[in-house]
Amino acid sequence: MDQILVKAQTLIEALPYIQKFNNKKVVVKYGGSAMLDPELELNVIKDVVLLKLVGMQPIIVHGGGKEISKWVSLLGHESKFVDGLRVTDEVTMEVAEMVLGKVNKHLVQMVQQLGVKAVGISGKDGATLCCEKKLVNGEDIGFVGNISEVNTDLIDTLIKNDFIPIIAPIGLDKNYMAYNINADDAACAVSTAIGAEKLAFLTDIEGVYQNPEDKSTLISVLTLEKADELIQEGFIGGGMLPKLKNCIDAVRSGVSRVHILDGRREHCLLLEFFTNKGIGTAIINDDSILFEHESGMKEG
Amino acid sequence: MDQILVKAQTLIEALPYIQKFNNKKVVVKYGGSAMLDPELELNVIKDVVLLKLVGMQPIIVHGGGKEISKWVSLLGHESKFVDGLRVTDEVTMEVAEMVLGKVNKHLVQMVQQLGVKAVGISGKDGATLCCEKKLVNGEDIGFVGNISEVNTDLIDTLIKNDFIPIIAPIGLDKNYMAYNINADDAACAVSTAIGAEKLAFLTDIEGVYQNPEDKSTLISVLTLEKADELIQEGFIGGGMLPKLKNCIDAVRSGVSRVHILDGRREHCLLLEFFTNKGIGTAIINDDSILFEHESGMKEG
Amino acid sequence: MDQILVKAQTLIEALPYIQKFNNKKVVVKYGGSAMLDPELELNVIKDVVLLKLVGMQPIIVHGGGKEISKWVSLLGHESKFVDGLRVTDEVTMEVAEMVLGKVNKHLVQMVQQLGVKAVGISGKDGATLCCEKKLVNGEDIGFVGNISEVNTDLIDTLIKNDFIPIIAPIGLDKNYMAYNINADDAACAVSTAIGAEKLAFLTDIEGVYQNPEDKSTLISVLTLEKADELIQEGFIGGGMLPKLKNCIDAVRSGVSRVHILDGRREHCLLLEFFTNKGIGTAIINDDSILFEHESGMKEG
Amino acid sequence: MDQILVKAQTLIEALPYIQKFNNKKVVVKYGGSAMLDPELELNVIKDVVLLKLVGMQPIIVHGGGKEISKWVSLLGHESKFVDGLRVTDEVTMEVAEMVLGKVNKHLVQMVQQLGVKAVGISGKDGATLCCEKKLVNGEDIGFVGNISEVNTDLIDTLIKNDFIPIIAPIGLDKNYMAYNINADDAACAVSTAIGAEKLAFLTDIEGVYQNPEDKSTLISVLTLEKADELIQEGFIGGGMLPKLKNCIDAVRSGVSRVHILDGRREHCLLLEFFTNKGIGTAIINDDSILFEHESGMKEG
Amino acid sequence: MDQILVKAQTLIEALPYIQKFNNKKVVVKYGGSAMLDPELELNVIKDVVLLKLVGMQPIIVHGGGKEISKWVSLLGHESKFVDGLRVTDEVTMEVAEMVLGKVNKHLVQMVQQLGVKAVGISGKDGATLCCEKKLVNGEDIGFVGNISEVNTDLIDTLIKNDFIPIIAPIGLDKNYMAYNINADDAACAVSTAIGAEKLAFLTDIEGVYQNPEDKSTLISVLTLEKADELIQEGFIGGGMLPKLKNCIDAVRSGVSRVHILDGRREHCLLLEFFTNKGIGTAIINDDSILFEHESGMKEG
Amino acid sequence: MDQILVKAQTLIEALPYIQKFNNKKVVVKYGGSAMLDPELELNVIKDVVLLKLVGMQPIIVHGGGKEISKWVSLLGHESKFVDGLRVTDEVTMEVAEMVLGKVNKHLVQMVQQLGVKAVGISGKDGATLCCEKKLVNGEDIGFVGNISEVNTDLIDTLIKNDFIPIIAPIGLDKNYMAYNINADDAACAVSTAIGAEKLAFLTDIEGVYQNPEDKSTLISVLTLEKADELIQEGFIGGGMLPKLKNCIDAVRSGVSRVHILDGRREHCLLLEFFTNKGIGTAIINDDSILFEHESGMKEG
Repeated sequence: MDQILVKAQTLIEALPYIQKFNNKKVVVKYGGSAMLDPELELNVIKDVVLLKLVGMQPIIVHGGGKEISKWVSLLGHESKFVDGLRVTDEVTMEVAEMVLGKVNKHLVQMVQQLGVKAVGISGKDGATLCCEKKLVNGEDIGFVGNISEVNTDLIDTLIKNDFIPIIAPIGLDKNYMAYNINADDAACAVSTAIGAEKLAFLTDIEGVYQNPEDKSTLISVLTLEKADELIQEGFIGGGMLPKLKNCIDAVRSGVSRVHILDGRREHCLLLEFFTNKGIGTAIINDDSILFEHESGMKEG
Repeated sequence: MDQILVKAQTLIEALPYIQKFNNKKVVVKYGGSAMLDPELELNVIKDVVLLKLVGMQPIIVHGGGKEISKWVSLLGHESKFVDGLRVTDEVTMEVAEMVLGKVNKHLVQMVQQLGVKAVGISGKDGATLCCEKKLVNGEDIGFVGNISEVNTDLIDTLIKNDFIPIIAPIGLDKNYMAYNINADDAACAVSTAIGAEKLAFLTDIEGVYQNPEDKSTLISVLTLEKADELIQEGFIGGGMLPKLKNCIDAVRSGVSRVHILDGRREHCLLLEFFTNKGIGTAIINDDSILFEHESGMKEG
Repeated sequence: MDQILVKAQTLIEALPYIQKFNNKKVVVKYGGSAMLDPELELNVIKDVVLLKLVGMQPIIVHGGGKEISKWVSLLGHESKFVDGLRVTDEVTMEVAEMVLGKVNKHLVQMVQQLGVKAVGISGKDGATLCCEKKLVNGEDIGFVGNISEVNTDLIDTLIKNDFIPIIAPIGLDKNYMAYNINADDAACAVSTAIGAEKLAFLTDIEGVYQNPEDKSTLISVLTLEKADELIQEGFIGGGMLPKLKNCIDAVRSGVSRVHILDGRREHCLLLEFFTNKGIGTAIINDDSILFEHESGMKEG
Repeated sequence: MDQILVKAQTLIEALPYIQKFNNKKVVVKYGGSAMLDPELELNVIKDVVLLKLVGMQPIIVHGGGKEISKWVSLLGHESKFVDGLRVTDEVTMEVAEMVLGKVNKHLVQMVQQLGVKAVGISGKDGATLCCEKKLVNGEDIGFVGNISEVNTDLIDTLIKNDFIPIIAPIGLDKNYMAYNINADDAACAVSTAIGAEKLAFLTDIEGVYQNPEDKSTLISVLTLEKADELIQEGFIGGGMLPKLKNCIDAVRSGVSRVHILDGRREHCLLLEFFTNKGIGTAIINDDSILFEHESGMKEG
Repeated sequence: MDQILVKAQTLIEALPYIQKFNNKKVVVKYGGSAMLDPELELNVIKDVVLLKLVGMQPIIVHGGGKEISKWVSLLGHESKFVDGLRVTDEVTMEVAEMVLGKVNKHLVQMVQQLGVKAVGISGKDGATLCCEKKLVNGEDIGFVGNISEVNTDLIDTLIKNDFIPIIAPIGLDKNYMAYNINADDAACAVSTAIGAEKLAFLTDIEGVYQNPEDKSTLISVLTLEKADELIQEGFIGGGMLPKLKNCIDAVRSGVSRVHILDGRREHCLLLEFFTNKGIGTAIINDDSILFEHESGMKEG
Repeated sequence: MDQILVKAQTLIEALPYIQKFNNKKVVVKYGGSAMLDPELELNVIKDVVLLKLVGMQPIIVHGGGKEISKWVSLLGHESKFVDGLRVTDEVTMEVAEMVLGKVNKHLVQMVQQLGVKAVGISGKDGATLCCEKKLVNGEDIGFVGNISEVNTDLIDTLIKNDFIPIIAPIGLDKNYMAYNINADDAACAVSTAIGAEKLAFLTDIEGVYQNPEDKSTLISVLTLEKADELIQEGFIGGGMLPKLKNCIDAVRSGVSRVHILDGRREHCLLLEFFTNKGIGTAIINDDSILFEHESGMKEG
């Protein structure tokens, strides 16, 4: 009986968020550990499907780095990295595209199985992701690209026709050569181009800490100003730094709210989006945009 | 931490129902005690608003009997009833229409306050409810009507433009005279005419019992066959009998599922619609239409 | 035979006006004596229906002051006025809303009886009329409001779907409390917000006179400049003054032509709108907009 | 003052007709004397424009026989007729087409001058009128055709885009040769094909008489049954016979009401369509379809 | 076998042009010798039909001068010209309109015969061509007009509904009098008003020569700058001068490319539009807009 | 000069075909040698792009058998076949899907490079291809499926939004497991489901021969009756037999015309579709549907 009340209250608590984000586009960057464990994977897909069912317009952008390494090695090649970026010769590019294609269609399959329509595309389809070669400290590391333009025509068509777009981060340069794109970068560029309301990164950490040593210092809402401060003061460590910079860029380009979530946490998307307290870190432009909706509402 | 998991599970449990009833029309007959207590009233309206926000198309049909009696008496008249129906002379009709109008706009006000658009109509607007005089055992008891036709044009227009229609049970006869309509009858007729998926009666009882003396015998799902059986065997008592017959008629006319709920129970609509166990009695055509969606799903 | 020619000529005379106002929105403020006499009432409604049938988009805004006073008194209360405005305590507000609701649905009934679709709304529906408390010389006289915003969404929906909107002047303040609004003010605010071409006041006078003592000095067309002049020179008496100021405001806000008509005159709307000579006073921005269409056409 | 009342009553009398024929297609066959007198011509065009302005969808089909004869003669040829049909050799066909084109664009010009959009077409445009050669008692009289099919695509496009279609009766056979078509036949075929509600013939007689010798025996409404009877009993004389047969065919093919009017009578279209008494003869399927709308309404 | 390869290559060569001009409006001014020879005429119409079928939106503007002279003379009148313009009294105007109407419907007939929909209009229809009287050196030469405005409503409607508009150069002045318009002028005005991508003049010359005496000096692409130069240096002779000035005006008003073609050359439109080399002279704004698409592509 | 005439004639010859197939859906099964030679590949893609540009709606269904074998072997596995069908264990299925994905996106890349929009999908996307396990003579050979249903929603969406759909033959069974589908079967099922007008197989033979030994006996048009006859009389050899049966099925299911073409022949699609003689074998229902359009037109 108590539990039934908790159920009712949970549904009621979710109400203002469902209302606020009705018909809004939400990009989910899916990668990391949450891709490797089938149970976590199913939970992530269920969450995305629920977002769709309650009226939001989710788009998935996924990575696949570890799987690529596995196949490169299976084929007797070696994975090399410069500054965390995969050196991508022609063979590697071919393998990368095949592996990302496999992951991409696997995600489609799971969404369809839950009764919602999905289409898996790469940046080649509809020339969605245009790019140019990326140099790392002036060095050419092969077919690794920076996004120069996002054609939103195909994504918009799919959304308007009720398909969830699932995007593999492959781009085309102006000579129509295929390039490997960093999935975080792709998620940011897509979010900005389609005017997403939210962008959520599923990562292997719980969020941003005031003090990474002290788990009790998780920051629930982080303004741009505060984020810059944390970076300048050196509180933000290695892997987190480029991700946080990406978040800041996305917010600066018009995405209202960028979330860093722990993808290993069950239903992290639902808990962050639909409960007052949330569970990760949200980066926003300015905390003046937070509003009070009933007591305790977190979301701006 | 446990509670946060319950939250996630509640949202996930609601998923298949939200999916199943997306864009479906749901008529809520609102009356009884749930109209008299302001807190219950707010809960009912919040539930209806949530139905709208998660993609369903709710329509409210309301009564107002007790309030009418109050005003009739305030004006120095006396309320008379034959067979439970109000004898309605010209003055009473005028008062009834004024009072139902007041209740109607009050509900509109509450829905609007929660940020959703609503329009209050009576059966006169767009000649939505057409009726003829109802005789009770051959006796003329005044302006009391039986619905002969529902023009769905206005209701459809409002729904299509994202307004929740809130309907007061006043009808017009072919001479365009106003008539008082029983709200349960109006809810049934509207449900059938607009092709509603669901019709929910908010009542002052918990549902249908196998044995009304024994609260543990509440019937969760009742097929037409079983309902007929209960009636024939005399298990269904006084006030419940016409209501249950109404439910049976609605299911026979194509409404998939008619719910009898205890309106005094907080958030009864949400709990019945979005949880596996439900809390009242659902009348359905045939239990073969029940499907299994994940373990334990109740809804057909 | 002569009469048949007059008929033909009347139809032909109406032609350029019908053409000019095709699909234009026309607000009719309906009040005064024309509401009390059933025959006049029927004539007004017939005229409005004809406006709809020849391609205009009529909207009715109605009052109901005398009827409210009657019911307030019936319930043992007393009507009090300050500066012509009804002091509106909670009880009076409740009665006012009930009475306006009754009048509103009665008008709907009449329009429907003539075979045209109508919907009766108050400013609560779709939060159409938003207001704030009006102070009279700094004094709080209760739930009496000034319109602060008109949400035209519902009115537009109804018009687009071929319903005549009939509006009772009740507003909502930002706390969603109900307020009594002056019907003339409501008619002006609605006209401006929906971009009406015309606004016609049905009153108990024949129009504006150069010299109120001399019936032969009725002014057929009055420019803003001339109207200001008449006011400054004190030619405009008591009850007419606020109404004329309202007309002037409406024209300044973009309504092309505001008409003051004698509602007691049979078919005054048709005669003013569709004949060359007209029968009341039309307030316009500037007489340079008058055009000549065939000889003798009055309308700009 | 009396006259102003007559004006109001005329507008009110027209109301149910305007309502009934809103958005209905009405074909006007324009020919005979009404084409030769510029003043009558202007009146006819004004009437058609008024039909459009009050919401009907008029289409004009016109003849031009006398004008064709004039030009044939101007060019030194002779007009020959068999059974009332013009023998049409190649030269005559060329002249006929030029003259009908001239008349056609002249009518367009007049409609445009009254501020309404019109487009003049012949049956060649959009292959609107398809025909085959007509033999007269087995004799080939040249390019004279019977309509075999009407392509309504162009007419529908023009109507939907608010142009009045004005049609010259030229057809194409299956080898795409041009043919002269009888204008009455063309009007009937077009009416049937586009689903016209009404077809009105402007003629040089006042209507159908019970006894042609006695002007007081004009028949106001004629059922098919009665029309057949009149024909069989030989009451219908020479020129009227084929026209009446055409009317009967049109009614049998689904046109609700076919009118025979005296085109020499000023505003005959308005008087027939918008007044209770009418002025010509209306052929209808069955007088049971007549309805009573207010007292004395003639129209079915 | 070689020939089959040529066929394939021709189709492939046409590809980039078909792609580039998909859905673009193209005005063809049809006149001169190409109108007098039935075989050439059929070829021109076939070309226009092909333009439509491969996705372009062709519009024909035609002349008819020689045919008008013939009929004026047939009717015993004399054709007079001032500065190359026909002196147009009332009779001449009537004949001109009849003859242009005949030519117009003849072209419609040919397009329809090839299975494509066409509608023949004059500038009267939909008041498409509005004009004012043209004075020649201050002299009034009758009903000869200069276009003052083009109403594109009708042309747009026809194009949107897949009809090829075929336009006779008759205009209406503000008193709705008919005027004769120079067909070259009409083609230019229409091109500019509807935002045509191309305007092609079918003439009796092969194009513009650097040196008219030397056939080898045909200029394939001519920029505005170069065109001005040629005119100033006096290289452009009599009949060509006004035509070239028209071309220049059209390019200045936004038409991307104006073509002067030899209408006597079989399928000149196809060869100019769909082959790399072209066959006439194209006037363009600036040769920087020429692009290279595969080797040797001429078109900008 | 002669050659320029051939060009014009080629374009004119293509006209009736372009007209006939405007907006019609055409499925191209792309496989065999034409996939292995980059130059042939480019020619095929150019042809498909041209089909799109002249108004047809092409869809590509592709195979990839040889490439799959190569990668299976690269990964140290062995390809096994039963009755020409690949035995498909889990690993093989994974490789097949990756390789088909690679081929699929490569084709997208080529179409995009020619300036036309394309999207590469597998049967998983939008659950386009549903299947069940195929047994070969009762033997289970793994994840090899027969199509049981085609959901056309995604294909229709892409076509309506001007993308060329490129389909890899992977299906989902009712448990959402992935299956390998024969590309010829997939092309047939898709053609039938979307109501294609044409289905063209690019093969490694020139067409169907009366006598395979004698190249001069190529059959240009083959009716179903004749095809059945050839099969029964044993004229159709090994590899051709299942393909021809597929063609027959497709025609029986409503595809108007199925083409067997030699994919090694440059621009075979254009030559078959747009020239009178064609170059392969077309299977049609009945030769009575052949029509004559100008002399020598082959196409029905």
